[in-house]
Amino acid sequence: MQNPKNDLFLRACRRQKVERTPIWLMRQAGRYMKEYRQLREIAGSFKNYYKNVDLAVKASILPYTLLGVDAIIIFSDILTPLESIGMKFDFKEGEGPVFENPIKSKEDIQKLKEFNPEDVYFVGEIIKGVNQTTGREIPVIGFAGAPFTIAAYMIEGRGSKDFKKTKSFMYNNQEDFKILLDKIADMTIKYLSFQIESGADAVQIFDSWAGHLSPKDYKEFVLPSVKKIIENLKHYNKPIIHFTKGVCGFMDFILESNADVYSIDWMIDIKKAKDLIYPKASVQGNLDPMVLYADTDIIKKEAEYIIKSWGEDTGHIFNLGHGLMPDMDASKVKFLVDTVKEISVRRQ
Amino acid sequence: MQNPKNDLFLRACRRQKVERTPIWLMRQAGRYMKEYRQLREIAGSFKNYYKNVDLAVKASILPYTLLGVDAIIIFSDILTPLESIGMKFDFKEGEGPVFENPIKSKEDIQKLKEFNPEDVYFVGEIIKGVNQTTGREIPVIGFAGAPFTIAAYMIEGRGSKDFKKTKSFMYNNQEDFKILLDKIADMTIKYLSFQIESGADAVQIFDSWAGHLSPKDYKEFVLPSVKKIIENLKHYNKPIIHFTKGVCGFMDFILESNADVYSIDWMIDIKKAKDLIYPKASVQGNLDPMVLYADTDIIKKEAEYIIKSWGEDTGHIFNLGHGLMPDMDASKVKFLVDTVKEISVRRQ
Repeated sequence: MQNPKNDLFLRACRRQKVERTPIWLMRQAGRYMKEYRQLREIAGSFKNYYKNVDLAVKASILPYTLLGVDAIIIFSDILTPLESIGMKFDFKEGEGPVFENPIKSKEDIQKLKEFNPEDVYFVGEIIKGVNQTTGREIPVIGFAGAPFTIAAYMIEGRGSKDFKKTKSFMYNNQEDFKILLDKIADMTIKYLSFQIESGADAVQIFDSWAGHLSPKDYKEFVLPSVKKIIENLKHYNKPIIHFTKGVCGFMDFILESNADVYSIDWMIDIKKAKDLIYPKASVQGNLDPMVLYADTDIIKKEAEYIIKSWGEDTGHIFNLGHGLMPDMDASKVKFLVDTVKEISVRRQ
Repeated sequence: MQNPKNDLFLRACRRQKVERTPIWLMRQAGRYMKEYRQLREIAGSFKNYYKNVDLAVKASILPYTLLGVDAIIIFSDILTPLESIGMKFDFKEGEGPVFENPIKSKEDIQKLKEFNPEDVYFVGEIIKGVNQTTGREIPVIGFAGAPFTIAAYMIEGRGSKDFKKTKSFMYNNQEDFKILLDKIADMTIKYLSFQIESGADAVQIFDSWAGHLSPKDYKEFVLPSVKKIIENLKHYNKPIIHFTKGVCGFMDFILESNADVYSIDWMIDIKKAKDLIYPKASVQGNLDPMVLYADTDIIKKEAEYIIKSWGEDTGHIFNLGHGLMPDMDASKVKFLVDTVKEISVRRQ
């Protein structure tokens, strides 16, 4: 597939020259947009929403047409592939996902089925649909949850604050936990390969929860599974973005995952992240999403801090350190996108 | 006041020679102990519990008599001093503290009253009661919440996941927010001075929530207020412990607070923390509390990792990276204390 017309994002992922910093925002297709909520109403449930190719394509494209971001991430959920391996769940209003039978034992892990991309054919259709609709104007990002985050959902059976069940399982059944992460890695390799083969220009691996681990445990349990995923996707020659919320403690060895781009939260200064990561890889981030509750002059000041801290080099993709929130003001999100485009023009 | 008979903890705080690593545990007087729950039942409510000198003294001492820790932290709550400045709150079952009138404006900040230690006379009595009951066998630690954490409670009106109200207030009312933190610092100086004058051998400042900030915002808003507290307590010549949950991003400048001891969570490796902090200050921590849900051989292995990583130097106080949990097994907590005492004996 030929490069999209706007390939700023892809060039920044590869540390190639850019005229300005590309920007996209985690959870950019989200409830803060009235157009997203209208589509969601048509869908009825969240699951119907992300499984309905037509609606999901429309939702994915909204941030491009309404905000002018430089990349489209497909509208989906990190739990999407799990039904294929036999993990049933539902989204409960105001509570998030709840699993029918969380993983409790070695036997539960052994019972997991082989992942079949045909079970999530709709994800491939969404990627194709986005590319068709935009006429390859702009890159499409596919994504998946990272093994630790997915395992935590499977073991907790829902969201958690302290990951008590996950960590108990990890400490008390170390080999089984590694087998589980490895199985999820295998699923993710197939799932992301399928997305790339369907036309994704880049893929992002979301580790929302690994930041709750000690560096030692991260290195022993989490890193090998993420590394395996990335290793097995390298041959596609598509940028692979590794996002870890709470990455600060892992900065000394995070490069071992061998991603092309590291997406960082706001609890580490971007100058420090640059020192540690660039030019071996690119950096994505790192605005605190909460800044979007502030007035526009503050939003501008905070965006400027990040842009200026990074400096004139390529290799930076502007993004948040975490996702947009449902009650945010869409006009402020648009202001942020416009501002980053304006202030990041290379003056050289 | 003369030194307590067991002054291992105080010597480690001052980087003086110790025969073994001292240990105490955050939230060591807590619901996981049946003896604590019995006292709580007599008190009726949590507030009656920490305001009742007799019961609070008994609760404070439990971990010393039952576990054999090397320091007693008084049983109290970080919100204790707030009623004195006019912030009313109650503890709701299963929800934690809820404030009657959270801070919403500059005017709310101006209306705050001057802190008067007489309003929390019971805290002084608890410290004296502990010292009397133990006959100065062991050091007593006083404590207070750090300005950001206290301000977040005052603005959110309760616990929070994303600190949306606090950060909105901080970004949109930067000078007022600094004034609020400064007022809380002034309160805390008086509050901790009162505790030291009542017989506390050391004090700990708890910043449970500052880790949600970017390093830049931490440095601008949080650090000056903590620094001010510590500066104004130095003349007592008692160890001051600075605990920040999520400290990793601030390690480059955390020493500016000028504490004697830095208490660290488990998301930073203790070897790295030692490199950055020791011997300028001591380090306390950093076991993931969740390890206590694991089997005893794992608890031992994890404790050993921390002890060995630190090495033979003094200046380390064993503790958790956060508090004990209500559903933990008291016998495993005891096992941890025994294990640390056993394995940390200096072999030189």
